[in-house]
Amino acid sequence: MLEKNVARMAERARAARVSLRPHAKTHKVPEIGRMQLALGASGLSLAKVGEAEVFAEAGFEDVFLAYPTVGGTRARRLLALSDRMRISAGADSVEGARSLSDVFAAARRKIRTLLKIDCGYHRVGVEPARALEVARAIADLPGIELAGVFTHAGQAYAAETADAVTAVGRHEGETVAAVAAELRAAGLPCAEVSIGSTPTAASAMRAPGVTECRPGNYVYHDASQVALGTCTPKDCAMTIAATVVSVPAPDRAVVDAGSKTLSSDPLRPRAGGHGLILGTASRLDRLSEEHGVVAVAPNDQFRVGQRVTILPNHACVVSNLHDRVYAVRGGSVEAEWRVAARGRVD
Amino acid sequence: MLEKNVARMAERARAARVSLRPHAKTHKVPEIGRMQLALGASGLSLAKVGEAEVFAEAGFEDVFLAYPTVGGTRARRLLALSDRMRISAGADSVEGARSLSDVFAAARRKIRTLLKIDCGYHRVGVEPARALEVARAIADLPGIELAGVFTHAGQAYAAETADAVTAVGRHEGETVAAVAAELRAAGLPCAEVSIGSTPTAASAMRAPGVTECRPGNYVYHDASQVALGTCTPKDCAMTIAATVVSVPAPDRAVVDAGSKTLSSDPLRPRAGGHGLILGTASRLDRLSEEHGVVAVAPNDQFRVGQRVTILPNHACVVSNLHDRVYAVRGGSVEAEWRVAARGRVD
Repeated sequence: MLEKNVARMAERARAARVSLRPHAKTHKVPEIGRMQLALGASGLSLAKVGEAEVFAEAGFEDVFLAYPTVGGTRARRLLALSDRMRISAGADSVEGARSLSDVFAAARRKIRTLLKIDCGYHRVGVEPARALEVARAIADLPGIELAGVFTHAGQAYAAETADAVTAVGRHEGETVAAVAAELRAAGLPCAEVSIGSTPTAASAMRAPGVTECRPGNYVYHDASQVALGTCTPKDCAMTIAATVVSVPAPDRAVVDAGSKTLSSDPLRPRAGGHGLILGTASRLDRLSEEHGVVAVAPNDQFRVGQRVTILPNHACVVSNLHDRVYAVRGGSVEAEWRVAARGRVD
Repeated sequence: MLEKNVARMAERARAARVSLRPHAKTHKVPEIGRMQLALGASGLSLAKVGEAEVFAEAGFEDVFLAYPTVGGTRARRLLALSDRMRISAGADSVEGARSLSDVFAAARRKIRTLLKIDCGYHRVGVEPARALEVARAIADLPGIELAGVFTHAGQAYAAETADAVTAVGRHEGETVAAVAAELRAAGLPCAEVSIGSTPTAASAMRAPGVTECRPGNYVYHDASQVALGTCTPKDCAMTIAATVVSVPAPDRAVVDAGSKTLSSDPLRPRAGGHGLILGTASRLDRLSEEHGVVAVAPNDQFRVGQRVTILPNHACVVSNLHDRVYAVRGGSVEAEWRVAARGRVD
């Protein structure tokens, strides 16, 4: 199913004539990144410099840090990386961009940089109304090569219907394309117009002017993508195997997968437990670190020692908790992959 | 502060004449475990067989898995461990205990086992009313040496006042001591009467009949322990260093520590953000994986590039996210410790 998901998004990007630069934070696995490139991705997106270092080590040649990268130490690590790969950075402030520029300019280099635009998520990114002013100041920095704009419509994860998700995606694409047009009209370079997120990818990539998309989650999907209408349960490629360790009451069973295994991320867009027990009507009702408490549905029964398969709320955070994943085909383990870029917090 | 916290709990256990077997899941660091033993702990508690394997490798000789350990594969790993250390297991069902007994009996061995009692948390554990029946069946298994009872009053984390926490602790100690008395009266061996949890430790360990306590969190403490009244902010020994990467609006700053760094565990006993920014009145209002969004308090100001120090909601889950911790004394890094037992999910 992993391969199908990877191929399907690549096909979708081809049809929309945008390049695909998947966010590899979802998997953090070089083998999956290679599969994405083999099926048509132009490069990868990551968030942390430490993640880019892991992927550079694994031979990847084109990474965009879709994150406002800040600070002299990180800039020096980016400079070292730029000897080994085409590395691009995100910025949403002149101060942040200057911390990169100072290091690159001192080495008589420039770092390819995209300006982050806030299309309504209100996390990071400049408001569209301020984009031209900030872009101009960043483009003037001697160590920066302004190459475009990017955005991420994280608010899609709170959209309660598939139509609402589509509308968020359309707004995402149109907002960032309009900023790009404004920058170009003012004489600034802005070739790349990049949108993000799995739920909004389909609609945002079709907005005129968008050149690149950066979905991440689609390789695995998860219970939240199902709830958002992005996919069906059978499209989900990541599950967690667990064992029932206790059945203290008829309506309660406990499995050995808690927040250390699944994270405590809530189901999106509406809270609703901590994971589905596949093949049953039951779900994880509460988690502690080592325990997942199953609210046993009326017609389900669990016994101590039973193996169960869990569909997690949020695949990306699960990747970060595990050192290894197992690639399964037709019920057999085909490969064991190291989650090589797990735990890179800097 | 770490050393003070370790010493203070050891002193408290000595004064109550109970042995101290700290739950090392909080730190997962052998160096801290050694500090606990050096200051008077009799052994360690852990949850996963994989964690016990790491601590055995580091030379620890006495570990109790305070968890209903289930399954033949795990039992074989426990059998191998029992050549290297005194290993004890938890059980809360005859089926679970039998899966251990089968393996140990085949090797003509017995595993020291404590029966888990539910003192009101309603996670795992047998109801006190059923304890004698289950204890009798477990004690009859040929590979089991029934050695006592244990419990954990996790409901203390929902108690809204310090008095309520104390009452939960008293109930915890009294409940498990009463079960122990019942088992002994029926002729069953029940030397160990073990209670858990940092907030309830002080009151539960003073209940007559309690022989052992297993607090974990107290080495670090965290914002939830402060909210529960277990400690003050200056007792907290774990902080996260982060950098402000974006200040998109006067009331919003974003740091490079999100759920990948802090986990998405809520503040206990009442939800209230995702971590305190020390030295300010501001706190983390929402997290995504790589972003912590600060709700900037009226008199605070943040600038891009600024370093901040975060007090997390829940220290134990933070340990599990990081490969290393830095031991700091008087503002200087004194040691770098590997979180050697991080990520052991089995």
